[in-house]
Amino acid sequence: MSLARVIDLRSDTVTLPKAEMIEAIRNAPLGDSIMGEDPTVNQLEKKAAELLGMEAALLVTSGTMANQITLMSLCNRGEEVIMGEDSHIYTLEGAAAAVVAQVQIRTIEVPDGIYDASKIESRIQTGDIQRPKTSLICLENTYNLNKGQIVSLENMKEIRAVANKHSIPVYLDGARLFNAAIELGVTPDVICREVDAVQFCLTKGLGCPIGSILAGTKEFIETATINRQRLGGGMRQAGIIAAPAIYALDHMIDRLSEDHKKAKLLAASLSTVDGIKIQAEDVQTNIVSPVISHEDWDSKLLIEFLSTKGIKVKNIGEKQVRMVVHYQITDEEIQFVVSAFEEFSSSVQIKTTVH
Amino acid sequence: MSLARVIDLRSDTVTLPKAEMIEAIRNAPLGDSIMGEDPTVNQLEKKAAELLGMEAALLVTSGTMANQITLMSLCNRGEEVIMGEDSHIYTLEGAAAAVVAQVQIRTIEVPDGIYDASKIESRIQTGDIQRPKTSLICLENTYNLNKGQIVSLENMKEIRAVANKHSIPVYLDGARLFNAAIELGVTPDVICREVDAVQFCLTKGLGCPIGSILAGTKEFIETATINRQRLGGGMRQAGIIAAPAIYALDHMIDRLSEDHKKAKLLAASLSTVDGIKIQAEDVQTNIVSPVISHEDWDSKLLIEFLSTKGIKVKNIGEKQVRMVVHYQITDEEIQFVVSAFEEFSSSVQIKTTVH
Amino acid sequence: MSLARVIDLRSDTVTLPKAEMIEAIRNAPLGDSIMGEDPTVNQLEKKAAELLGMEAALLVTSGTMANQITLMSLCNRGEEVIMGEDSHIYTLEGAAAAVVAQVQIRTIEVPDGIYDASKIESRIQTGDIQRPKTSLICLENTYNLNKGQIVSLENMKEIRAVANKHSIPVYLDGARLFNAAIELGVTPDVICREVDAVQFCLTKGLGCPIGSILAGTKEFIETATINRQRLGGGMRQAGIIAAPAIYALDHMIDRLSEDHKKAKLLAASLSTVDGIKIQAEDVQTNIVSPVISHEDWDSKLLIEFLSTKGIKVKNIGEKQVRMVVHYQITDEEIQFVVSAFEEFSSSVQIKTTVH
Amino acid sequence: MSLARVIDLRSDTVTLPKAEMIEAIRNAPLGDSIMGEDPTVNQLEKKAAELLGMEAALLVTSGTMANQITLMSLCNRGEEVIMGEDSHIYTLEGAAAAVVAQVQIRTIEVPDGIYDASKIESRIQTGDIQRPKTSLICLENTYNLNKGQIVSLENMKEIRAVANKHSIPVYLDGARLFNAAIELGVTPDVICREVDAVQFCLTKGLGCPIGSILAGTKEFIETATINRQRLGGGMRQAGIIAAPAIYALDHMIDRLSEDHKKAKLLAASLSTVDGIKIQAEDVQTNIVSPVISHEDWDSKLLIEFLSTKGIKVKNIGEKQVRMVVHYQITDEEIQFVVSAFEEFSSSVQIKTTVH
Repeated sequence: MSLARVIDLRSDTVTLPKAEMIEAIRNAPLGDSIMGEDPTVNQLEKKAAELLGMEAALLVTSGTMANQITLMSLCNRGEEVIMGEDSHIYTLEGAAAAVVAQVQIRTIEVPDGIYDASKIESRIQTGDIQRPKTSLICLENTYNLNKGQIVSLENMKEIRAVANKHSIPVYLDGARLFNAAIELGVTPDVICREVDAVQFCLTKGLGCPIGSILAGTKEFIETATINRQRLGGGMRQAGIIAAPAIYALDHMIDRLSEDHKKAKLLAASLSTVDGIKIQAEDVQTNIVSPVISHEDWDSKLLIEFLSTKGIKVKNIGEKQVRMVVHYQITDEEIQFVVSAFEEFSSSVQIKTTVH
Repeated sequence: MSLARVIDLRSDTVTLPKAEMIEAIRNAPLGDSIMGEDPTVNQLEKKAAELLGMEAALLVTSGTMANQITLMSLCNRGEEVIMGEDSHIYTLEGAAAAVVAQVQIRTIEVPDGIYDASKIESRIQTGDIQRPKTSLICLENTYNLNKGQIVSLENMKEIRAVANKHSIPVYLDGARLFNAAIELGVTPDVICREVDAVQFCLTKGLGCPIGSILAGTKEFIETATINRQRLGGGMRQAGIIAAPAIYALDHMIDRLSEDHKKAKLLAASLSTVDGIKIQAEDVQTNIVSPVISHEDWDSKLLIEFLSTKGIKVKNIGEKQVRMVVHYQITDEEIQFVVSAFEEFSSSVQIKTTVH
Repeated sequence: MSLARVIDLRSDTVTLPKAEMIEAIRNAPLGDSIMGEDPTVNQLEKKAAELLGMEAALLVTSGTMANQITLMSLCNRGEEVIMGEDSHIYTLEGAAAAVVAQVQIRTIEVPDGIYDASKIESRIQTGDIQRPKTSLICLENTYNLNKGQIVSLENMKEIRAVANKHSIPVYLDGARLFNAAIELGVTPDVICREVDAVQFCLTKGLGCPIGSILAGTKEFIETATINRQRLGGGMRQAGIIAAPAIYALDHMIDRLSEDHKKAKLLAASLSTVDGIKIQAEDVQTNIVSPVISHEDWDSKLLIEFLSTKGIKVKNIGEKQVRMVVHYQITDEEIQFVVSAFEEFSSSVQIKTTVH
Repeated sequence: MSLARVIDLRSDTVTLPKAEMIEAIRNAPLGDSIMGEDPTVNQLEKKAAELLGMEAALLVTSGTMANQITLMSLCNRGEEVIMGEDSHIYTLEGAAAAVVAQVQIRTIEVPDGIYDASKIESRIQTGDIQRPKTSLICLENTYNLNKGQIVSLENMKEIRAVANKHSIPVYLDGARLFNAAIELGVTPDVICREVDAVQFCLTKGLGCPIGSILAGTKEFIETATINRQRLGGGMRQAGIIAAPAIYALDHMIDRLSEDHKKAKLLAASLSTVDGIKIQAEDVQTNIVSPVISHEDWDSKLLIEFLSTKGIKVKNIGEKQVRMVVHYQITDEEIQFVVSAFEEFSSSVQIKTTVH
């Protein structure tokens, strides 16, 4: 059993740009975007702002940069930011919140992607001589890069109400915002209504080579532009990044539902494999993270086996791997992956039995 | 029922220096301690280092300064520090860890003052392109400024073992170190053997007007001295702070057991008061934080009532107050406080019944 | 007198990518470069390291990011960095040195692009309880973005000797490194021998749309990669940025001499224009910054006039403008610019005379 | 020739508290000053604010802390502060401006203690995408800790006018404010009228053991109090520091003129010593920094010689030493120091001649 090409499920960041995107680069009018003169960048930022229902938008290098610029722009040093304990900002940005924005993070658990508004409220502080003032609430939707859980509109509204009550802005790290929107059955601006600022990644499900979009009020984006420059994120002819992004906003959003369908199918199929634990309902969007329930196996063993089949998955724990479905993954490949798991399950079982 | 003077139980920081301390100031030889020439400071630092079994010690303005200097001296920016979620460093230092040391804090729960070594270990990271490296574990003993819980030597050894395994230094915020030592029945150096650096406060149970002692290796104290100066904590004739401290180390440590006895007596007596919830065994050292169990009462009501009796306690929640016993509190005063609670309980009950 | 297209001399950052560069993007194999898997990025980094004679190289978003990553990677917080007072790092990076690397900058004057090694030495500090330690010397070659002055190899060797004597690393902000190399008649590695780390910009004379290259030891680049990620500079399919860069390294370096020739010609021609002060010998590379010597005129007036001719120049003072020659500027356009200045000179003179 | 006791001229920070100060400590009512309850601290802060003509004042540990708190309180990260290149903040505070306030310092030369207002104005920036915004001007009066030069009221008014024009606050590091006031023949509030915030040191000419006073608007002092706490500068029974300070404000200011007289006499006498260069008019307040003009001698040689006479001076360069006159230095001692210099001059001359 084999397939010609590698099936890379480690992340949706591995997606290669479509030919149409490259073509878009070729045709893009360019200019110096630090001077505000790249027409393609300007077009993208206008289009993205409209899509999100925000006043203004800014093209940045990455989601991490969007997140850090936001902390710098909405918080003073020595303030606190509340977020989920599995948030990307807290876990995977090199403690940049402390380095560049000098803010302290206060976390809450977010089981199943459900933020407990009362827990958030209990962590809000007005600040005094010893206690830092809470200056921002950061949500993530979809939540948890190993789970891709959807935060419901109702949940977002609850948090918004708490935030409003205490006059604290809300920021949405929407690295996979459109995966949430598609699944919630709303346009993204409906989600963004509940927050003051938002970022989404162009490089994940949307398949662009580089970039994220940060959006909010005009004033916020003006400050963000200065902070982007300060972090070295100002780019010259950034139209070569913006051109594929414009294509993506037009053509790559709606199709995310296909990824979700495949991911759920993958989970459902794996749920029947011996020694592997996952339920279809564990998968809300495009991320499938099965647990190895067999006590003798571990992630390393599984990853090595899959790798001999040309399948790449990500190690996210001693007994858990992550697979992210994206536009380059076909139905046939999903089937192939399931078969590989089944083969692993039986072959390893035999081996371990013998042993 | 009344007493001539105010009974201030809000904190052991309110303690006034004894006449002997003021006399010590008068007799202290002084010099410029930034130049290293204050004989009284030098004597104190030597004495404190010996007491703690550390190579060197440094007099600093406050526990907060000792803590922040330590983070600056043992961590590079962008690294992580693990500590209990109720730690003073995390909750009551104005997010200074992010401001001055630019480190990210990762917390664990520490129920009943027991650190879960495996939980600590699970939060240790070696660092990679996205994950910050763990560079320090901070313990607090006694733990939680509203509870004063003792961290056992066994528990400290467990954490030390985990830390050693990962080559991570351990720091002890021992603001109330001697309260722990007295209760554990060991000299403080026995506790300090399990850590690389430590601070204790002179201004709490020891009754000094100002200051904390930071101790560790010579190299650490050299770096700490530079960072103290950077934060503006270098002082000139600091002997006037050191002199009472020398007295305190000689005369104020052993007597802490009396505070503990009174605190436990206070808790035991309050446990019988209607509408107040606390057990003698909740109190391990000198801190008594009863909960108001009666559903109609709150902290504000209680505090106002006690205040009419000349008793000051600290509001630490809608239904909880804190009382810290210190050398100025007599047995008679403890009794007076209990009576006041009883009076509150009955009078308020009547009122609320009538109402 | 008129030309069909706009002549943009404000900066060499306005250069548009050549068709060959866009073609290179189309043909570039791509991958996730945060995972180290973009073949085009890897090829570029290898090629750039070789060209510079350095162990390793890293593609980053901008010169500002390269500079800031270097400060973060080579300095601890609270240390000092010595550089020229007109350095880009000091003047045009939003005080990021204080924000992200928390270092203090100590400047020296660098008249005519000549660093005074003894002045640098006089500013070096070993650090004590009050004085910060000097941890880095930053050179810029070509120096001063409004002058483009060449720092000679002899001068660099002198500074290197001082730096070695005090065991301090030297970093070269070589935003326009190749302009210096071409004019010094050496390959860039000869310049880089005198420093420990270096960056050059792809977006200036080399005409690429985005990016800079940072290079140094393997160890430095490893740390730099982490700091790049921390600032949000990690990119996914960065091959679309790397592909034009590879083309540029092959085809755009040697031709910089043409820009210099044109710039010198421009200066020589302007030197004869009434009311304008510049000498051919003021121009060492591709930057021409004439001063308006006529007392009644100012930059604004000149810029407005030139703009009616389709010529864009940069305002760098009340009586001074900057023009940067780049690959898109032809001989004919240089001539056209000179004529425009002449027309300005006579027409304004007439007006001011009449007036 | 000999004197019983050491003559310590290294700094006016070496001054020991007078007996009356120690007596003041003994009689001072105390309380927890972090809770705002130390009556002696409160009295001092009120008294100091009145003396300076400011709304409010705050007792802090040191001049460095006052300076750093001010930068934190008046500037956001990434902004610029203009000051003289010999300012204490820039040269002797461990680059704390970059570490704790994350601001960039832009310096001007201040020859003879005269700030060039137009030079200050030329360095003011409103900020743009690349340039940091100027948010503070810091003066020092007396200026330069090795010179003690007086900044005239006219000069301060000029700078104030520039600052007002650009809506930038002015801060005065008045470590030796009263030395300036005495010599200018005005009360300190007259000087402070020209600034928004100010600090002076209690530990220099005023002879207190510890502390500085920071003053400004009520709002500023509120923010400063939070930042003091954040840096660990909050103190408990700080009345023991405040009590001597109250005495000093009453008794130690006017007598500073005696120090100035002695310092000028010292300079005048030294001006006639062979091989030593200083003029009476070089000394404006209490600091005397003669240069060794004899080519064969250096500071080390002189310092060693003086040390054999029980005289301590500070090395501030290969050929320069500093002597600061303070209340503990008598006329007789000044004469003794002059004699020692004369002896050095002749004895060394003989030696060097022989040699």
